[in-house]
Amino acid sequence: MSSSALKPGSTILASTVANNFGEEIIKKVDSLKSSLPNGPLLVGFLANNDPAAEMYATWTKKSCESMGFRYELRRVEDRDFLEEAIIEANRDDSVNGIMVYYPVFGNAQDQYLQQVVSREKDVEGLNHVYYQNLYHNIRFLDSNNELKSILPCTPLAVVKIMEYLKIYNTLLPEGNRLYGRKCVVINRSEIVGRPLAALLANDGATVYSVDVNNIQKFTRGEGLKFTKHHVEDLGPYSEDLLKKCCQDSDVIITGVPSESYKIPTEYIKDGTSCINFSSFRNFDDSVKTKASLYVPMTGKVTIVMLLRNMLRLIENNQKLHGK
Amino acid sequence: MSSSALKPGSTILASTVANNFGEEIIKKVDSLKSSLPNGPLLVGFLANNDPAAEMYATWTKKSCESMGFRYELRRVEDRDFLEEAIIEANRDDSVNGIMVYYPVFGNAQDQYLQQVVSREKDVEGLNHVYYQNLYHNIRFLDSNNELKSILPCTPLAVVKIMEYLKIYNTLLPEGNRLYGRKCVVINRSEIVGRPLAALLANDGATVYSVDVNNIQKFTRGEGLKFTKHHVEDLGPYSEDLLKKCCQDSDVIITGVPSESYKIPTEYIKDGTSCINFSSFRNFDDSVKTKASLYVPMTGKVTIVMLLRNMLRLIENNQKLHGK
Repeated sequence: MSSSALKPGSTILASTVANNFGEEIIKKVDSLKSSLPNGPLLVGFLANNDPAAEMYATWTKKSCESMGFRYELRRVEDRDFLEEAIIEANRDDSVNGIMVYYPVFGNAQDQYLQQVVSREKDVEGLNHVYYQNLYHNIRFLDSNNELKSILPCTPLAVVKIMEYLKIYNTLLPEGNRLYGRKCVVINRSEIVGRPLAALLANDGATVYSVDVNNIQKFTRGEGLKFTKHHVEDLGPYSEDLLKKCCQDSDVIITGVPSESYKIPTEYIKDGTSCINFSSFRNFDDSVKTKASLYVPMTGKVTIVMLLRNMLRLIENNQKLHGK
Repeated sequence: MSSSALKPGSTILASTVANNFGEEIIKKVDSLKSSLPNGPLLVGFLANNDPAAEMYATWTKKSCESMGFRYELRRVEDRDFLEEAIIEANRDDSVNGIMVYYPVFGNAQDQYLQQVVSREKDVEGLNHVYYQNLYHNIRFLDSNNELKSILPCTPLAVVKIMEYLKIYNTLLPEGNRLYGRKCVVINRSEIVGRPLAALLANDGATVYSVDVNNIQKFTRGEGLKFTKHHVEDLGPYSEDLLKKCCQDSDVIITGVPSESYKIPTEYIKDGTSCINFSSFRNFDDSVKTKASLYVPMTGKVTIVMLLRNMLRLIENNQKLHGK
């Protein structure tokens, strides 16, 4: 009691947030029993020796099996055969979802591979169409608004965590629930950081998007033809500018893929919500003296989002092919 | 006369190869007069201050206008608006082809932009579908073999140069005309080097594909399900290994985007054909003492291939929409 008085904030584990989605997912898997009596099949491709990927695969298998999915890990010894293995799974009607543990080549060839996964089985939401819809705030794949677009699973996990943390204010109308919020996102990769900044901006937030080169401000702009976020360059990266952005923000989200990177705790103002999606912890433990809510890792929420995406893809396919 | 005896090889300019395609292209543009009386319209987007891009744009305009095309350069001051400008051109029926002068962001966001260009107007052939077809040696977009797939324009330009240099042997059946040839390709980018190595391997060559990390050997393999090139790792990059590969090769193709990089002339055996597609010259002038045929730059052939691709796209669209 007295120690919690000294540290007014709370650490929230990803598993706590993830558990919140269990019931909804199990119910939906159950409703698919007539067409998929053995449960939907997710295939994961592992073509590296990364222990983090191995652990992530173990978690995925466990989550799958606890919620009525089947999971099959396919190890590809020679990464030059991964493309053909993916294409085989694309064509295999018994496979409902496909994911790949990246990095495989660790360069632009990985982006090529992401587009090889069939859009209909792309549970990670990495297909170009899904990203383009995200940036333009388009929620459906068809003009009848029947087939739902998929969101890339890590940005989606961060959004779901922010909903759990009540950073999204449900008193505001959907699509506007971050109105007035200011967020820092440290990472501007095409996979997570840039789409995440756009998602938050599209929901009304002001986002400081930080990478090693510069800092940008994403806001909801009206665009030329779309309701699309607007990007403004604030200046080259500097510790001073980063500190200024942090001190102006209610939420700090980190995703720096480096063991040594820690955001200086002094940059963080009292009561900030802090979320780290890197597989390395980008916050020092002292963050707990400042943060109101601190989420040290997000991987388990990402896995649940994968499964949720997979159910959407199955629903889309059933609608498309008349059940 | 005596100096040519001292230097038995020849330098072949890209313009000489490019001119070879002029008549064919002009004839085809002419045959489109009924549907496109003012000529097809190519739109180029420039969102950087790269003088090389500026020069390339000037050349493109000149080539277009000399062959009956219209060319429009659209400058985009704020690169964050480029995506919307491309989408606008995608939707504009009066635009027949679209190209972008890269780099724009100089990172993975450029790969995102490449996929924003509509496949039907992608004269550079950068759409994922075109690359995937290239790797799998698939020539058509449809199962009736009516709509031709597009090849990315720089790899295609190198192939056309190799045909001009008679490295492709027309006594051999099409698809096998590099049988017995050995080639070095220094560059393994997703845009040019890797697809080029695959194209050459698919035509029967043994290709040493070199990047800063390692050297691989591409050969024509049967693959699991496709007639697809096979890739074998030869080892990490070293000068020794590169030299060995060069000395084993009839053709050396360079594409290192660096002003200072020059392949040591001593690596090159007498009578090698040497082609440089980098905008910097990767061969020292002394290459002329070794090379049988030397092509110092390829940009003008690339432009002609752009226009050839554009005509294919127009034909595809006319077939698709019943003229």
